[in-house]
Amino acid sequence: MTDTSDGAFRRKHLLGLEELSREEVENILDTAKSFREVIGRQVKKVPSLRGVTICNAFFEPSTRTRLSFELAEKRLSGDVINFSASGSSVSKGETLKDTIRNIEAMAVDMVVLRHGASGAPHYVAEHVDACVINAGDGFHEHPTQGLLDIYTMRAHKGKLDGLRVAIVGDVAHSRVARSNIWGLKKFDADITLVGPQTLMPREIERMGVRVTHLLDEALEACDVVVVLRLQLERMESGFLPSIREYARTFGLERRHIVKNPNLLVMHPGPINRGVEMEAAVADGPESVILEQVANGVAVRMAVCFLTWRANGIEMAAALPGA
Amino acid sequence: MTDTSDGAFRRKHLLGLEELSREEVENILDTAKSFREVIGRQVKKVPSLRGVTICNAFFEPSTRTRLSFELAEKRLSGDVINFSASGSSVSKGETLKDTIRNIEAMAVDMVVLRHGASGAPHYVAEHVDACVINAGDGFHEHPTQGLLDIYTMRAHKGKLDGLRVAIVGDVAHSRVARSNIWGLKKFDADITLVGPQTLMPREIERMGVRVTHLLDEALEACDVVVVLRLQLERMESGFLPSIREYARTFGLERRHIVKNPNLLVMHPGPINRGVEMEAAVADGPESVILEQVANGVAVRMAVCFLTWRANGIEMAAALPGA
Amino acid sequence: MTDTSDGAFRRKHLLGLEELSREEVENILDTAKSFREVIGRQVKKVPSLRGVTICNAFFEPSTRTRLSFELAEKRLSGDVINFSASGSSVSKGETLKDTIRNIEAMAVDMVVLRHGASGAPHYVAEHVDACVINAGDGFHEHPTQGLLDIYTMRAHKGKLDGLRVAIVGDVAHSRVARSNIWGLKKFDADITLVGPQTLMPREIERMGVRVTHLLDEALEACDVVVVLRLQLERMESGFLPSIREYARTFGLERRHIVKNPNLLVMHPGPINRGVEMEAAVADGPESVILEQVANGVAVRMAVCFLTWRANGIEMAAALPGA
Repeated sequence: MTDTSDGAFRRKHLLGLEELSREEVENILDTAKSFREVIGRQVKKVPSLRGVTICNAFFEPSTRTRLSFELAEKRLSGDVINFSASGSSVSKGETLKDTIRNIEAMAVDMVVLRHGASGAPHYVAEHVDACVINAGDGFHEHPTQGLLDIYTMRAHKGKLDGLRVAIVGDVAHSRVARSNIWGLKKFDADITLVGPQTLMPREIERMGVRVTHLLDEALEACDVVVVLRLQLERMESGFLPSIREYARTFGLERRHIVKNPNLLVMHPGPINRGVEMEAAVADGPESVILEQVANGVAVRMAVCFLTWRANGIEMAAALPGA
Repeated sequence: MTDTSDGAFRRKHLLGLEELSREEVENILDTAKSFREVIGRQVKKVPSLRGVTICNAFFEPSTRTRLSFELAEKRLSGDVINFSASGSSVSKGETLKDTIRNIEAMAVDMVVLRHGASGAPHYVAEHVDACVINAGDGFHEHPTQGLLDIYTMRAHKGKLDGLRVAIVGDVAHSRVARSNIWGLKKFDADITLVGPQTLMPREIERMGVRVTHLLDEALEACDVVVVLRLQLERMESGFLPSIREYARTFGLERRHIVKNPNLLVMHPGPINRGVEMEAAVADGPESVILEQVANGVAVRMAVCFLTWRANGIEMAAALPGA
Repeated sequence: MTDTSDGAFRRKHLLGLEELSREEVENILDTAKSFREVIGRQVKKVPSLRGVTICNAFFEPSTRTRLSFELAEKRLSGDVINFSASGSSVSKGETLKDTIRNIEAMAVDMVVLRHGASGAPHYVAEHVDACVINAGDGFHEHPTQGLLDIYTMRAHKGKLDGLRVAIVGDVAHSRVARSNIWGLKKFDADITLVGPQTLMPREIERMGVRVTHLLDEALEACDVVVVLRLQLERMESGFLPSIREYARTFGLERRHIVKNPNLLVMHPGPINRGVEMEAAVADGPESVILEQVANGVAVRMAVCFLTWRANGIEMAAALPGA
């Protein structure tokens, strides 16, 4: 067990937000804040991970998350190797097993893993010496997205304790929603999920959240709304009657903002304008979607830096005589 | 407006050759010449862009242009991130909008953009703080290709003023042709376009060039010929009757060189040997196709270096009290 | 001709093991051993190839070999450019010719080439100034795989002279087998090929090896077994009746190990568990498959380092007055 009673970050992996303490989340957010300043400079680079080899292993297609991690890693002066297997014909189970062996054997120092199977990063973390960072696993967690969302909320609202957050959309299939919920619960945030019955997870009440299908009511009573991306393939699977129907019932419109002018609007991107929200909302002054992207690089720098430092502490502690 | 009266390069973007002054083009060519010497050394690297993050965003497939830019950027010690969206299912308009937001938010310093829509780099340049370099936009311009062609002509012919240049092939669909024409017109070069009626652009006379479909005549009266690559899909679109017919009428042959031994033969590559020109011409002593590739890296180093320096000058000028 | 009488490595290319002397192979293995120690350190990087541009040109799909080379190159501080053409529509012959011209022109220092045509790297090496390293060419050779196999054998068995090695599987279509045979023959190793008649190459007796289709007998009388990966598409081509039939006749099982407990089990990966060998063998204590991967990075570091140094020696010798 990792002793985290003093709040210092002693984990060499970031697998999910569920298992983190409040102090650990705050530690990451504070570290991210200092990297946010680095990104604002003319030269945006620090030597923290010089000589460290990082493999971005993406078993699902991704553009923005991969770019964000790669930028974060290069700004820490790490050596980056990209591996993308989404087009590969190899069965996923076999590839993951192979990947573990290769990572271990090639002495890669850090693995950023995206995988379609929930729990894949945990499995890898158990079998390799490298630091493992979860960049999204199945329907389970997407912890760096959760962290960057929470970072953005704190930056705008000044606090997280008791913050009223609505999460709108396909919660059942969303690892982004799960990481937000786990992260926000550390701060006793007040969370309301909004969406059609068919897209709400069954176990959800156990997470200590409220569920409703009344968007107007929910938006009037919250400080922040996290709008999830609608995967259009859900329609084909019969989860939803039609996109138009969904947009009419759960799409954010200008009138929602008029009723609650302090509402902060967030979205993990990319937006389906006219579906999850009107363009006027997406591009309006209450939208901080662009800032989320910016904060994402800083949060990922913090996570890479902290896990690598924790790994060094662990290795030093393992030395004879230590 | 950028003041360029003293010839110094003060543009933070390179979007096309049309808008450049003669002095600016010469400035790029002269800078490229000094980088050409760097490439000839044992260690081909300079620290000019150390700490600068460059994103190669290619929305159309490309091998040689992407490789050339990546080499140029790495030889300037930049940190390079590649993004290729040609296989993506996202609609192009949406992706470009998203890309702008992401570039802006991720604080990338420089974007090298290839896009199927004419004007895409201009649109991006208006919306981001990063330097933007056009690596080919629709049927509009491919300015670094134009510059490397002009660099190669100057290196071999010693001057550009009054140089007689023939451009052969599918001019209507060629951004390479357009950038050559705009660049060469700064030097009052004498330009003749050669090709079938169906592949000549309508607005072309306004550019101040001559048009003919008589290859032999044109080649006898020029110093340089730029042969364009024939996109074989043009046949399918009904622009051309057959490849054999095209090759017979507009393909360069040994006999053309015999009649005009001082002719310099250029091609942006890759060549369809036996279509645009005989293999004997492509691989003959008057062909400088290989040199064009070499000059391309130097020209791209110059463009990245100059736009980045101009960006620094602009930022310094924007400081209070400056 | 390269003078290698003193055992120093004076080749600027590594095209195959056939043409190497015993001293050259030993030189590579010894150099790899020192890089193996580098990889064991906290900071796994040396500055040997600082400022050197290396292009990984893969005309066939590859994940593990490309990753291994890229890691090796980055640990030597080289600047790496990846080029993958497997999805390209260009005909292979044309692309290779173009690649040569581009490599030459772009002044890349080193090319790591994988190509479907046997002899492609030799052809490239004749036409460019860059160092060329064969990462697999057709059915011909895969020299760095052969070297890492031999390195692993020497590390475990303490010697190579007279070592008894069985190679099991589809030898006819295996460049891995060929490189192993050529390499091991330098040390008068005793080689037995095991597999179905249809998968044995015709010219094989000339290589000085024994051929059998009796797996049990061969395994009892050897120190090392190299199990080849079965390309499942061979079935479709009619070379083999069925996978089940193949697994029953040529698959390694636990009982083989019981009869010969000193047997070292090797495989180039990825393994088809249950086809070429039982999972219990693949993951058992006599399997060094993981170590092969680890040694692969060290061997590739050695090959890149030695060819680049040889290139420098050659260039120095070419100077006037030298």
